[in-house]
Amino acid sequence: MSQYRTFTAQDAVEYAKQFGGLDNPSSLVEAQEVGDGNLNLVFKIFDAEGVSRIIVKQALPYVRCVGESWPLTLDRARLEAQTLVEHYQHSPQHTVKIHHFDPELAVMVMEDLSSHKIWRGELISGAYYPQASRQLGEYLAHTLFHTSDFYLHPHAKKAQVAKYINPEMCEITEDLFFNDPYQIHERNNYPAELEADVAALRNDDRLKVAVASLKHRFFSQAEALLHGDIHSGSIFVADGSLKAIDAEFGYYGPIGFDIGTAIGNLLLNFCGLPGHLGIRDAAAAREQRLTDIQELWNTFAERFQALAREKTRDAALSAPGYASEFLKKVWTDAIGFCGTELIRRSVGLSHVADIDTIADEAMRHECLRHAITLGKALIVIADRIDSAEELVARVRQYS
Amino acid sequence: MSQYRTFTAQDAVEYAKQFGGLDNPSSLVEAQEVGDGNLNLVFKIFDAEGVSRIIVKQALPYVRCVGESWPLTLDRARLEAQTLVEHYQHSPQHTVKIHHFDPELAVMVMEDLSSHKIWRGELISGAYYPQASRQLGEYLAHTLFHTSDFYLHPHAKKAQVAKYINPEMCEITEDLFFNDPYQIHERNNYPAELEADVAALRNDDRLKVAVASLKHRFFSQAEALLHGDIHSGSIFVADGSLKAIDAEFGYYGPIGFDIGTAIGNLLLNFCGLPGHLGIRDAAAAREQRLTDIQELWNTFAERFQALAREKTRDAALSAPGYASEFLKKVWTDAIGFCGTELIRRSVGLSHVADIDTIADEAMRHECLRHAITLGKALIVIADRIDSAEELVARVRQYS
Repeated sequence: MSQYRTFTAQDAVEYAKQFGGLDNPSSLVEAQEVGDGNLNLVFKIFDAEGVSRIIVKQALPYVRCVGESWPLTLDRARLEAQTLVEHYQHSPQHTVKIHHFDPELAVMVMEDLSSHKIWRGELISGAYYPQASRQLGEYLAHTLFHTSDFYLHPHAKKAQVAKYINPEMCEITEDLFFNDPYQIHERNNYPAELEADVAALRNDDRLKVAVASLKHRFFSQAEALLHGDIHSGSIFVADGSLKAIDAEFGYYGPIGFDIGTAIGNLLLNFCGLPGHLGIRDAAAAREQRLTDIQELWNTFAERFQALAREKTRDAALSAPGYASEFLKKVWTDAIGFCGTELIRRSVGLSHVADIDTIADEAMRHECLRHAITLGKALIVIADRIDSAEELVARVRQYS
Repeated sequence: MSQYRTFTAQDAVEYAKQFGGLDNPSSLVEAQEVGDGNLNLVFKIFDAEGVSRIIVKQALPYVRCVGESWPLTLDRARLEAQTLVEHYQHSPQHTVKIHHFDPELAVMVMEDLSSHKIWRGELISGAYYPQASRQLGEYLAHTLFHTSDFYLHPHAKKAQVAKYINPEMCEITEDLFFNDPYQIHERNNYPAELEADVAALRNDDRLKVAVASLKHRFFSQAEALLHGDIHSGSIFVADGSLKAIDAEFGYYGPIGFDIGTAIGNLLLNFCGLPGHLGIRDAAAAREQRLTDIQELWNTFAERFQALAREKTRDAALSAPGYASEFLKKVWTDAIGFCGTELIRRSVGLSHVADIDTIADEAMRHECLRHAITLGKALIVIADRIDSAEELVARVRQYS
């Protein structure tokens, strides 16, 4: 049994030699820590030619940005590795490959994706990957369908629910998405100029009832093994390729949460674009985002329904028409969760570069305000938006 | 460690002496096996005066009515005991008291309720317990609220979900409630004269989509620790008293399932009454059942909301108005599950004495047909019935 210790770069190299599954492990010579997250060490392991060959990721026992004062379970490394391994089984094209993981060291060795770039950065710079949204829809359909009650034997499903119970990481979501922005909390983070907008969130009873309902669904509806944090910063893209990473929030939850998080991050980019590009380029990029959202949902829904037709094993859930009926529920959930993502990324602890890197302060505030307004509207009218096309119409209405 | 063996009457007496918590255990002299279920041995343990003092219940490793060909996990004794102990904590007045249980022997020692009678028998004979429906509403509100996300810390709730995962017993419900009646299956049990009515269930696409949705909620919505089988045969009543027993189907599921099962059994009695009583008495007893249903739901909903106001610990779920919003969802679920109970008790494996003991064959068939018609209607129009009063109006419409 390997006892937990924080890896040095040299530890990471040795570990990668041993567990990286490379033909020529001795070619690995050095490591560079590249983690930009707050929870983990991420080492790129290079060979003698300076080529990055493999990744070693280790969970830290605390939240890095806050320091060691916010301890966080190392078990999330197990949950992340198991979620990615499970998702890889169902969507190998769009899930990072895990070569090895050790629950004691809270470490995993995985595929190097240096040929790819983080989608969020590309979206901000205006680089368009026209296939990405459809591939994300495929990833979500395959991973969520195959871990759902449509496909799994009820005994296997229940065992999976137990295996993926993830109290500490879920608690972060429960707090940051559904509590903090709707109350005065020291974790909240927004410019003083937005105080009136944020106070309006706290004083909107109808909004708070809708948010409570979303939190309750997040708490209680074990529909599929979610990624749990599928935003554009946990997605790598390249020409014709998309790979999901960073699944430490994986647990059995409502399918609409993954869909809503993904759409929400495309909308956050939509809100921020005028801060990064000229008027015409921003307008064009915004149209791309709206197309992305439609393609993401429509691809997801079509693939999920096709899988349901071909592979549903539950006798009752195979009733003709049920999968599309269920997808209406998923869609309504997704719109609501999308709204909470827009708000928590504008008001809460953790922001997105799509808006936060906007240099012009007035513009940045305008974009934040836009995200809050849009988020609030989506949460409240979620059950009146029937299609991706109608969502797009609503986004235009609030823009 | 005690290895499993099926108890004889003498074993049960010895066990009760040891674990019954009685002041004078040596007074126990004999046992009588009184189990009328198919899954368990139930011994009443008598003292020398012939007074029943305590109950010893042991799970059998197979379904009794079918013989040893249908094996069934002994772990259900643990689940039953733990569910009853948990429910007793929150509703001691209305839950049978467990003195001791042994998971290896699959045995529990519990309070004797000889002063009480099974509610179903009383309902059939026309004996009215006017407080019973309100007490059942209290039991359901207390047990379901205190095991829900409103009250439990999210970590504790998730641990409870894992503890109460109950694959084998849930599978029985999944099959008998949601599959069998809607397909040709050897377990189904109905008179040939009803073939057209039953075939209509199999051929009703809208009904099957609604049943699929209910099954999916049963599969995936972990709202509270359900009793899981709270029909009038698992409830003891006496003047001013009501006690729930038989919780081997306990698991974390949708609150509406318990409510719907309870209401469904009152409606099954409603359907059967003309077969047991004269016209005037049956009409009066039917009015009592409709009153019972209104009182059950209204008591449950008022108590649940009062508990939510006073004791909700989750910051988001305590939003004013959320508990009543959530109860709309519970009510819609309950109507749907109630409909599936009416149908599965008329068409499926396990029937109720309220209808099956009707001597006149034509009358019995008429009552079965009534239950099927009513069940089908409730499943399909569940989301259009807004209150207990409206449910009663609909029941009159279909009677």
